[in-house]
Amino acid sequence: MAYDASNLPDVSGLTVGIVGGTGDQGRGLAYRFARAGQAVLIGSRSAERAARSAAEIASSPGLPVGASIGGAANEEIARRSDVVVIAVPWDGHASIVGTLAEPLAGKIVVDCVNPLGFDKHGPYALAVEEGSAAQQAAALLPQSRVCAAFNHVSAPLLVDPQIDRIELDVLICTEERELVGIVGALAARIPGMRGIYAGRLRNAHQIEALTANLIAINKRYQAHAGIRVTDL
Amino acid sequence: MAYDASNLPDVSGLTVGIVGGTGDQGRGLAYRFARAGQAVLIGSRSAERAARSAAEIASSPGLPVGASIGGAANEEIARRSDVVVIAVPWDGHASIVGTLAEPLAGKIVVDCVNPLGFDKHGPYALAVEEGSAAQQAAALLPQSRVCAAFNHVSAPLLVDPQIDRIELDVLICTEERELVGIVGALAARIPGMRGIYAGRLRNAHQIEALTANLIAINKRYQAHAGIRVTDL
Repeated sequence: MAYDASNLPDVSGLTVGIVGGTGDQGRGLAYRFARAGQAVLIGSRSAERAARSAAEIASSPGLPVGASIGGAANEEIARRSDVVVIAVPWDGHASIVGTLAEPLAGKIVVDCVNPLGFDKHGPYALAVEEGSAAQQAAALLPQSRVCAAFNHVSAPLLVDPQIDRIELDVLICTEERELVGIVGALAARIPGMRGIYAGRLRNAHQIEALTANLIAINKRYQAHAGIRVTDL
Repeated sequence: MAYDASNLPDVSGLTVGIVGGTGDQGRGLAYRFARAGQAVLIGSRSAERAARSAAEIASSPGLPVGASIGGAANEEIARRSDVVVIAVPWDGHASIVGTLAEPLAGKIVVDCVNPLGFDKHGPYALAVEEGSAAQQAAALLPQSRVCAAFNHVSAPLLVDPQIDRIELDVLICTEERELVGIVGALAARIPGMRGIYAGRLRNAHQIEALTANLIAINKRYQAHAGIRVTDL
């Protein structure tokens, strides 16, 4: 029952699509997955912007020979990917995800969006009618296999080619045990990361909201904070 | 700005009171603080129960010679302590805390209560009108200095005298920078722990709610999970 990295499924053949792949978080995750040898497709509302972003990532240092990185409109990359990461800004989340129900049917969808507001006192968690961004995605994508994950990975660390290891745990909220294996295996392809089951989707809100705390930590300690689960 | 354990205030002379000190979490924290050499006062609605619990802790293995552990009614220990930990069950939180406004005036109050519900799918976060248990305490104790902390420490680890180190970070939510030092120094007296500033009280809800995720993690991985903040 303990966490066991030797027990993970082989996900090396899966194509990972990133909806909102031109944003900081999306580009960072795309770079790390490509660097790990995963085929990656960058999605954007603009196919042209997606292609440009894919070309930029393809020319980044540290990628393996033959790295496969493409870019296209969100709908097309959703259709062509096995696992699709939702990495759009929160204020576009419902509208963008809502248009992708058909191409995302049957796919594994990983929502890493954090609904946060900002004022003069810094970040705070926004209330979400469905409970969380991940639950909103699950409601909009009834034929997809939705989980929350990669909520706490720091974009500046992801995109920095000098950084080899990113020491943190990817907390995965899902109703499906099999997703923990697949998404956890994807997380584990990034050196330093583990994917840990962290409860059902109804407990995704506080995972997303915790990003407000991590931003406060980053500010106070001049850090790029992540979360590691102890005793695992 | 980085976390620096050498920079913490000297809190060795402070008396720590535990309101609800006869529960698992309260007894565990009382034992760890006493073991670290802190004077500890156990509080309960029943002075007799508090005294019995104090006597039990005083006879536990691992305490330093001359350990100071007393027990009395919640109101009395609130009055006699410098720092008071609120460790009552959530369903008694408002009523118990509400009666202590006067004895807790001017004191540092550390709320470690997690408002959780349980059903056949396990634990989930409860909505709290004030936002969080800590904010409810702050509203009920307008003359106290309230923070949220020690939400994630596992009672079975705390009470086990065989365990020397508990590897986790105590996330501290507060409006007052000085409290981070004092409460962080108390946390750091327990070997393996650090006290980390984790944002304002308005971001305490997700710290409390995250306990639902930790319980899910504990169940899946047969662990006593805690949180460590990386890159600090």
